[in-house]
Amino acid sequence: MMTDKPYAIGVDIGGTNTVYGIVDKRGTILKNGSIKTSTHAKIEDFLDDLTKALEALIKEVGTKEEIKGIGVGAPNGNYFTGSIEFAPNLRWKGVIPFVEMMEERIGIPVALTNDANAAAIGEMTYGCAKGMKDFIVVTLGTGVGSGIVVNGKLVYGHDGFAGELGHVIMRRTNGRLCGCGRSGCLEAYSSATGVARTAREYLDMRPGVNSQLRTLPIESITSKDVFDAAKAGDALAIEVFEFTGQILGEGFADFVAFSSPEAIILFGGLARAGDLILDPIRTHMEKNLLAIYQGKIKILFSELKESDAAVLGASALGWEI
Amino acid sequence: MMTDKPYAIGVDIGGTNTVYGIVDKRGTILKNGSIKTSTHAKIEDFLDDLTKALEALIKEVGTKEEIKGIGVGAPNGNYFTGSIEFAPNLRWKGVIPFVEMMEERIGIPVALTNDANAAAIGEMTYGCAKGMKDFIVVTLGTGVGSGIVVNGKLVYGHDGFAGELGHVIMRRTNGRLCGCGRSGCLEAYSSATGVARTAREYLDMRPGVNSQLRTLPIESITSKDVFDAAKAGDALAIEVFEFTGQILGEGFADFVAFSSPEAIILFGGLARAGDLILDPIRTHMEKNLLAIYQGKIKILFSELKESDAAVLGASALGWEI
Repeated sequence: MMTDKPYAIGVDIGGTNTVYGIVDKRGTILKNGSIKTSTHAKIEDFLDDLTKALEALIKEVGTKEEIKGIGVGAPNGNYFTGSIEFAPNLRWKGVIPFVEMMEERIGIPVALTNDANAAAIGEMTYGCAKGMKDFIVVTLGTGVGSGIVVNGKLVYGHDGFAGELGHVIMRRTNGRLCGCGRSGCLEAYSSATGVARTAREYLDMRPGVNSQLRTLPIESITSKDVFDAAKAGDALAIEVFEFTGQILGEGFADFVAFSSPEAIILFGGLARAGDLILDPIRTHMEKNLLAIYQGKIKILFSELKESDAAVLGASALGWEI
Repeated sequence: MMTDKPYAIGVDIGGTNTVYGIVDKRGTILKNGSIKTSTHAKIEDFLDDLTKALEALIKEVGTKEEIKGIGVGAPNGNYFTGSIEFAPNLRWKGVIPFVEMMEERIGIPVALTNDANAAAIGEMTYGCAKGMKDFIVVTLGTGVGSGIVVNGKLVYGHDGFAGELGHVIMRRTNGRLCGCGRSGCLEAYSSATGVARTAREYLDMRPGVNSQLRTLPIESITSKDVFDAAKAGDALAIEVFEFTGQILGEGFADFVAFSSPEAIILFGGLARAGDLILDPIRTHMEKNLLAIYQGKIKILFSELKESDAAVLGASALGWEI
């Protein structure tokens, strides 16, 4: 897209942190930064702080007039309406007219999509989905999100809310309560918080089994602790990742029956677990795939730095305004 | 599409019957007919009989030179390769190079897709999806198929096999064996054969419960028998449809999380059950939907005559050759 303005801004709003960057036309992130999402109980306060931070960053490279637009990826961000609507992992409830509120404050055009869609655009433009026309990005962070690309285009759906694969039901009986209020969602098992929860359950249910995780206060255990233990060979921690990968693999087999992608790309914190999670995903996906799909679907890790991909993906929206 | 040839042929291959018709440019079916699919153990014999039947039909309206092309909808029909590949509900196993074999016999260009995709094209062109850009057609026949439309285009996926929603796993423990060799598939519960199976299970498991279905030899009970009994107020038969609708509703809620369609359109034999199946589908879909989708998704019945929609949809492929 040709434009006289040399920069776009990408903003990625996660449940915990918000990262942002100023990007040039070649996709180089010139300046970046982050603020906490979760410490802002009110959207107004969050937007005031974000605006201040972005204005300071813009001054470092030039003026507001040089910014073409701001692309924002946020949980439940709706491309069509410009609103964040009923995001289970954010503190701001109901419908937030995000684009309108942010444009009022910063005076630069803003476009919004969900964070996983932004990541998918990032992978397609700069990452391992370059040249692919059919793929799914699954983001494994505080929650589980997804950006689905069919025939080279993001699937937004009728209302702009397509691609909530973290909320496909994986366990219909005795399913775990999810942040969305329902039970048995993929996200309740296969997010970073899901991993920590599985570890706590295993420790609780198997008092006789040894694990280095027992040296930690049980309520404080994080997915990072489980990862460290598994890397060190802790059998219980390894089993936690096996279970996490099993649920993902079972889910992926169903996603394949939907859009038959060339690849499913893993993105976000849990993807750092590498083979610990990849091996069980592959095993259980293949085991659950319909014969016509077996051995065809690549499972890849994003090759982009996590914060970069989200910021770059979101910034791509900024150019299109 | 402008062409000098005035006719196209649509062929719909089902597990039991194959229907076909000669269609003009306005979408009028001028002549049609059907042959049995299931009585042909060998694809060669089937194609010989189909060719004979089509040639006789063509003579009634003109000559082969007036036929632009033949569009064929078949289970696991692959648009990209022209093959029927590993179709669980057909007697012809492995990979059948259908387009090549049929063109050799009939001397008219042939294009292939799966039967549910053909139905989706039919609904979009002539049916209740006219003007819609995002919808899913679910065909409820001997098996359960699906044609997914995103942003006005059929989703073929990377390999041409997208949209096998009948083989999404609905019950992960003690799931019913499916024709595909796996267990717990939607199709094992919500196809016509699934309905008959549920009825047999209920009759078996509840020997004390009265039902007019008990007057029939249990192994011969069909979905039509269950429908007739339910219409007559038979409580057990009504419950069979409630369970069938429950499984469909649960599945639809997951499909919505994928592509967020404007509508899900029911097509095929079981759709004739009307409110008996629609009410439980609506109830269980809404109960299982993520909040952002609730109250938004239409469940519609195809308004096209079943055989017409399949033939018209397949014929649309014939024009494009």
